[in-house]
Amino acid sequence: MSVRTREAYVDSLRRQKPNVYMDGKRIDNLVDHPAFRTGIDSAAVTYDLSNDPKYLHLSRVNSPIIGQEISRWTHIMENEQDAIAKTKLMAALGEYLCPCSYRCITGDVLEIVKEAQKNDWIIGGGLISPKGDSSKGVTGQSDPDMYLHVVEKKADGIVVKGAKAHSTAAPYTNMLCIEEMELLPDYFVGFFTPLDAEGITFICKAPHAPEKPKELENPLSSRFGGHVESMIVFDNVFVPWEKVFMCGEMEGVATFGTILGASHMWHKCMCRWANMGLSIGATALIADFNGVGAAPHIVDALNEMAIDAEMLRSCALAAAVEGWKHDSGVYAPRLAPVAAGKVFAARKLGEDRYYMQDAAGGLVATMASELDYFSPTVGKLLEKYYRGRDGVPTADRVRAFKLIEDLTASEFAGWYHAMCISGGGASQTYKAVVGMEYDIERCKAKAKRAAGIRQ
Amino acid sequence: MSVRTREAYVDSLRRQKPNVYMDGKRIDNLVDHPAFRTGIDSAAVTYDLSNDPKYLHLSRVNSPIIGQEISRWTHIMENEQDAIAKTKLMAALGEYLCPCSYRCITGDVLEIVKEAQKNDWIIGGGLISPKGDSSKGVTGQSDPDMYLHVVEKKADGIVVKGAKAHSTAAPYTNMLCIEEMELLPDYFVGFFTPLDAEGITFICKAPHAPEKPKELENPLSSRFGGHVESMIVFDNVFVPWEKVFMCGEMEGVATFGTILGASHMWHKCMCRWANMGLSIGATALIADFNGVGAAPHIVDALNEMAIDAEMLRSCALAAAVEGWKHDSGVYAPRLAPVAAGKVFAARKLGEDRYYMQDAAGGLVATMASELDYFSPTVGKLLEKYYRGRDGVPTADRVRAFKLIEDLTASEFAGWYHAMCISGGGASQTYKAVVGMEYDIERCKAKAKRAAGIRQ
Amino acid sequence: MSVRTREAYVDSLRRQKPNVYMDGKRIDNLVDHPAFRTGIDSAAVTYDLSNDPKYLHLSRVNSPIIGQEISRWTHIMENEQDAIAKTKLMAALGEYLCPCSYRCITGDVLEIVKEAQKNDWIIGGGLISPKGDSSKGVTGQSDPDMYLHVVEKKADGIVVKGAKAHSTAAPYTNMLCIEEMELLPDYFVGFFTPLDAEGITFICKAPHAPEKPKELENPLSSRFGGHVESMIVFDNVFVPWEKVFMCGEMEGVATFGTILGASHMWHKCMCRWANMGLSIGATALIADFNGVGAAPHIVDALNEMAIDAEMLRSCALAAAVEGWKHDSGVYAPRLAPVAAGKVFAARKLGEDRYYMQDAAGGLVATMASELDYFSPTVGKLLEKYYRGRDGVPTADRVRAFKLIEDLTASEFAGWYHAMCISGGGASQTYKAVVGMEYDIERCKAKAKRAAGIRQ
Amino acid sequence: MSVRTREAYVDSLRRQKPNVYMDGKRIDNLVDHPAFRTGIDSAAVTYDLSNDPKYLHLSRVNSPIIGQEISRWTHIMENEQDAIAKTKLMAALGEYLCPCSYRCITGDVLEIVKEAQKNDWIIGGGLISPKGDSSKGVTGQSDPDMYLHVVEKKADGIVVKGAKAHSTAAPYTNMLCIEEMELLPDYFVGFFTPLDAEGITFICKAPHAPEKPKELENPLSSRFGGHVESMIVFDNVFVPWEKVFMCGEMEGVATFGTILGASHMWHKCMCRWANMGLSIGATALIADFNGVGAAPHIVDALNEMAIDAEMLRSCALAAAVEGWKHDSGVYAPRLAPVAAGKVFAARKLGEDRYYMQDAAGGLVATMASELDYFSPTVGKLLEKYYRGRDGVPTADRVRAFKLIEDLTASEFAGWYHAMCISGGGASQTYKAVVGMEYDIERCKAKAKRAAGIRQ
Repeated sequence: MSVRTREAYVDSLRRQKPNVYMDGKRIDNLVDHPAFRTGIDSAAVTYDLSNDPKYLHLSRVNSPIIGQEISRWTHIMENEQDAIAKTKLMAALGEYLCPCSYRCITGDVLEIVKEAQKNDWIIGGGLISPKGDSSKGVTGQSDPDMYLHVVEKKADGIVVKGAKAHSTAAPYTNMLCIEEMELLPDYFVGFFTPLDAEGITFICKAPHAPEKPKELENPLSSRFGGHVESMIVFDNVFVPWEKVFMCGEMEGVATFGTILGASHMWHKCMCRWANMGLSIGATALIADFNGVGAAPHIVDALNEMAIDAEMLRSCALAAAVEGWKHDSGVYAPRLAPVAAGKVFAARKLGEDRYYMQDAAGGLVATMASELDYFSPTVGKLLEKYYRGRDGVPTADRVRAFKLIEDLTASEFAGWYHAMCISGGGASQTYKAVVGMEYDIERCKAKAKRAAGIRQ
Repeated sequence: MSVRTREAYVDSLRRQKPNVYMDGKRIDNLVDHPAFRTGIDSAAVTYDLSNDPKYLHLSRVNSPIIGQEISRWTHIMENEQDAIAKTKLMAALGEYLCPCSYRCITGDVLEIVKEAQKNDWIIGGGLISPKGDSSKGVTGQSDPDMYLHVVEKKADGIVVKGAKAHSTAAPYTNMLCIEEMELLPDYFVGFFTPLDAEGITFICKAPHAPEKPKELENPLSSRFGGHVESMIVFDNVFVPWEKVFMCGEMEGVATFGTILGASHMWHKCMCRWANMGLSIGATALIADFNGVGAAPHIVDALNEMAIDAEMLRSCALAAAVEGWKHDSGVYAPRLAPVAAGKVFAARKLGEDRYYMQDAAGGLVATMASELDYFSPTVGKLLEKYYRGRDGVPTADRVRAFKLIEDLTASEFAGWYHAMCISGGGASQTYKAVVGMEYDIERCKAKAKRAAGIRQ
Repeated sequence: MSVRTREAYVDSLRRQKPNVYMDGKRIDNLVDHPAFRTGIDSAAVTYDLSNDPKYLHLSRVNSPIIGQEISRWTHIMENEQDAIAKTKLMAALGEYLCPCSYRCITGDVLEIVKEAQKNDWIIGGGLISPKGDSSKGVTGQSDPDMYLHVVEKKADGIVVKGAKAHSTAAPYTNMLCIEEMELLPDYFVGFFTPLDAEGITFICKAPHAPEKPKELENPLSSRFGGHVESMIVFDNVFVPWEKVFMCGEMEGVATFGTILGASHMWHKCMCRWANMGLSIGATALIADFNGVGAAPHIVDALNEMAIDAEMLRSCALAAAVEGWKHDSGVYAPRLAPVAAGKVFAARKLGEDRYYMQDAAGGLVATMASELDYFSPTVGKLLEKYYRGRDGVPTADRVRAFKLIEDLTASEFAGWYHAMCISGGGASQTYKAVVGMEYDIERCKAKAKRAAGIRQ
Repeated sequence: MSVRTREAYVDSLRRQKPNVYMDGKRIDNLVDHPAFRTGIDSAAVTYDLSNDPKYLHLSRVNSPIIGQEISRWTHIMENEQDAIAKTKLMAALGEYLCPCSYRCITGDVLEIVKEAQKNDWIIGGGLISPKGDSSKGVTGQSDPDMYLHVVEKKADGIVVKGAKAHSTAAPYTNMLCIEEMELLPDYFVGFFTPLDAEGITFICKAPHAPEKPKELENPLSSRFGGHVESMIVFDNVFVPWEKVFMCGEMEGVATFGTILGASHMWHKCMCRWANMGLSIGATALIADFNGVGAAPHIVDALNEMAIDAEMLRSCALAAAVEGWKHDSGVYAPRLAPVAAGKVFAARKLGEDRYYMQDAAGGLVATMASELDYFSPTVGKLLEKYYRGRDGVPTADRVRAFKLIEDLTASEFAGWYHAMCISGGGASQTYKAVVGMEYDIERCKAKAKRAAGIRQ
């Protein structure tokens, strides 16, 4: 069946045996390990969505490649309509609350796509090598492994060595898509590999989320978004040729990078748009519960965030509409608008949090815990003194504060902030990308015409 | 002929005999009056564009209403494709340097459209009454004429009284489209009228542009953008019923307002986008001429402006793609993205000017005049001391400075700033509009789900 | 001895027996409870400073009240020189790394001052009542206890009921200073009380900091800044008249509020200034370790933060210099500059974090834990792949990343963010305060003169 | 008499015979030339202030150098008290409406000071050479005169050649103070010279202000602020040794540059502060006249501008308080706070204008001229339709709009914008200055301590 359920996804994880470490210990069964709970649940949301009758028109599509109905998350886009539909699918996902489902990586490139579509895989990505001294290129490092590279070419495949940092969610995907694109033959390589291939080690960071659900305390991050980050180390890993899609053919690198970046940033714009909607809602909710829903500074804050959200969504739509078709038939969104959107979104996060917290007030940081609130000792006092406006159950007001704490002042909030700024590449990089994509020379020519300069 | 030339447009103006005053004096022949030169030239650019072979695919369209090829500026949009094409046409217009051609007002509503299409008219607009005390509505004013209203209904038409402020370019359009939409029967009226109907007086403000062209001194505003602003006074003007399209039928007012606002802001986004391109070009040009084109702060400024320009263009595209079809068959762009874009653009103008001036340096404000530069007395000294990097003719560098002065520190720059902030309505109004268009209740519901609040 | 050591301070805490709850459980010995460790250490820093030979000229002063050398933290300022010295003392404290020592509350008002000076007390504050429905005043609440109030006046003292929210650090201070300043006689009251008076309950929130020190993982918040927040409930607490300093005398309320707000915001400006210095340092450090210390965007980020830091420090200095002397002889800093600084600082925090994270890159969120880094299993791999530029020990680079994680993406970071925005009152409130302090009428008169309006 | 009147100042100008050109023509009598009217009046305001009984305590001071009462504008500061008094004097000047009086240049260096104090001179400055290709230093230019330099040293003096750009107000000062500080002996020179020394030519730019006063149309720039800019060309000008204060002695250059920059930026902060007050007043006034003085977005705009103004003033005060004493005995304000303030102020100008225009609405750009308003033809119509709220004379409302037009959308507004951004040096330069003044190494050391890095 080419569209999986949440259960089928989890089952597939059980069949994989990756070599996973966290806090210095090996984890054999990650599916049942508390540190992986919210990460897997977050990814699973995309499978729920694929089976939600309300969204079937968006979530499923007929694959021209395998001739079956597949999940749109594994679909290779062919045109603008595809891109618009996917933008809407991302918006629908936003309604599922999950701040990050990690379906933004796609293996748009190969035979493997058929298998991915048939099995409705989640593909894990590894793009960024550790790099050591960032000011020096691949050749300037004292350790040749600071960038991933081919150490041997054999008749039946290649052997690779190195590491990939910042691989969100990687241990609970179904297939890894690894790329290095430095301009040296051995350092220009792309391949797919199962997670449990020999020589691969995942060194994981426990999620920025509570291990045991605290449904009042961390209402969002107890359920979603607490992804596990990992560094994937490749210690002489063998990859058969049929899973290698790049190996030293360095033309087209810019194009490939552009497609990858555009696709990732496009998803990021919509993720942040969904999150902005949650910020707007949380601000409106707490203001309402505090009795100040109509205060001018609240209305102003909501308007400001709504402006930002509309602009961000516009970036995603513009990228979808102004995309282009690669020779391979793949339709790619345009990079510039979503690179702009990424930078914009990263900068605006601090502002959104300012609005939420300023609307809520000090209790965001000072409210007692759920253990207090539900305790026989002091629970009654809190029930008395945490009341808001008449008609709002105190527990609901407490939940609204805890949501804002989860969104702005929790460990999860910290992780999400970092994701917004650095996820998919530094904001500074994307800022430069927009400048390069923009046709400055056309602008200069226009300025010359305006100035009456003839040359 | 349904697509006019610049000449045909100017001829049509000669045949009109509006009652026009400026600086206290009546102007009989405005076509040849210096104060109207750049305004008329700016509007005429749209006719040049309609006849430019390079852009015919964008500028012309077959009218389903009159069954002839017409100018897209008079076309009633029917679908998303129309909207995307028009967005591209606006972008093409941006290449013509003209900061404002005033073709953003369209009479989308009536029989009159056929005539407008056949004759390729420019329609002038009058929407905003003087209002007196803004805090009071139509009924709170001491003078009933502070809002335009119907003073008499006759068998063959109506008689109206009042005034319309802020009518850019009105005296050199071909037909006025006047609306008042207050919720009192006599104050809810819309009609077309020729400019020279009895009882109409235009009180004009001389343009913020040099009367005599100073091609070095004011390279842009000597040619384009110096529009004449006017207040149009209606002193018991008679309008026959066939030109009246609203008269007391107050349903649908919100819809109509939304369409008008969306259409206007959509054009504004693309105008400002074109202008941002000019800011980018001017910054890059002066930096190049000063020998610092690759300085990090210049690159950074260009990147920042490119981000803003991409976002603004994305707003216009998103509005085009996410538009909706009115019962009448008219396709309207979505309001929220372009209202957001308007506010964004208005705020960014100050920043663009900061970048341009900081890149250029003090000569923007202190450079001697063209009379000095071309003079036998001190011209040689200026030629010597105004030199920039080798290979750049001094005159070209002077022109680049003068362009930035024209764009940031001239009277025209002042007018353009005001247009960006208040043109088509106050930024504050559009800020509120985005908030109202955004579905805050949906966001609140989402926040409740996230917080675990069940009600 | 009127200047205490850290040890004397801790001893004094041992002698107090407040009624403290956390997570539903009573805590008898808070000095040795892990949740109070960093909070007490943070407060103790001020005692270290008072005994640091390097800063004695700032930290000690002769008290004109008790005629002994005392700590400047308990000194009542008398003039501008005092205010400048205290500004310098706050700057010195900033060098101690501690993001918040909670010595910003002072009991400037009474006899109790003598005792505070003699004993070098930390005074705890309680100013903000729960308030319930914020849109309604004290009289509009359904529960009269939503604001603290006098329930009985006796011959020897008063009995009070209610609660104070947001009392940072209260359980480990030496004396509470509680105020309610609503304009109803029973709701206008101010008094001192020992923490362990009968009827007082502290309901505490565990700090946003690791209970067990993780010196690599949370290098800052393992040591400092993890303050305990509490709500203090007063259940018919008796206060003898000699500790009551306000009881129904409602004149002078505005003045008193102004002094309190100014004093608190003045400290806040310098706290944030110190924290900005740490942001600047952390950004410079990680960029250096990554090999990109001279990259233009890093230099630009440092410059931007330096500008903000200079401005914030200027606010504190201006408040010190332009202060005023109350009839009582107390010198108070001017409110407007530091209220402006508070709003500025709250807004800039998101930006500072953007710079830090953008300079550092993804490892801020994705770096493995210290348990991994020091583990025999994967530690070697991390040592290999976490290397930065030559000459920098990998462990140092790891520490620099962890510092930025602690500053931007930890629970502590979340708490600190909330403190910046809401601590001492909502930013929105202080924004309004600046507007009220500014002499708008003088500005209007000036505008009239400029416009030539004579009236 | 060591404190002059306005009349004495103007008389002194009549006695000077500088070689002045404007628009290609020589101007013999600049005092009576309309282009110099507002410039001279603006400078003269400082003399009015020196004789205004209300401000004598600020405007006059006893000179320790010549032992007479002098104007504070010519006083050499000796300590913090001097600096605070001067800050207050600048604030007082701000009440005189004049946006720029050009008394910010002081000749702090020499014997000439005595003469300046005795005669209460205005000193004109020339600091910035044309520079040609900015990317190349003094040695990289194809024309050696792109930087001013010594061409000959004689027994009795030196001969200099070159030019100084951007010399605001120079032709109506009493003595020029010229500096070049490049690190080549011939290009390191500083001297005083009378304006009418042989070989000096002023090439002037007509002011961005109306030649004939339009008291309703340009209420501010008709009176003040329309300064004449000039390039001063030195064609082998002889300077006697007694007026030369630097000639090849290149030590101390950094110090001297720091003092100059700090002094200039300090004045700039207070100028912009005064101007912000005018923006606040104009916004409050027009909102009041429009009947919306209490609208939340107006209050918010006023609060925002008040915050900015307080911060800017704080920068000036902090610089005064934290200044330092040069070996020569001169007290200099600290550079960093006012360099920060300059950048801040330059960026905020666009925002201030946004607030003013958004509060005022479209009439800022579209209001008819004073010729219309006072005309018998259409004046009555304007009187009727330009009415605001009851109780406000229409003429007053018109004046308020015209003031905002003058402040935001006039030629003067353009010049003022350029002055804010580039005046006294590019904002980019001062941004870098703050970064250099800030002790980044101290911050890094602090970050290391916080991170637990021991080295």
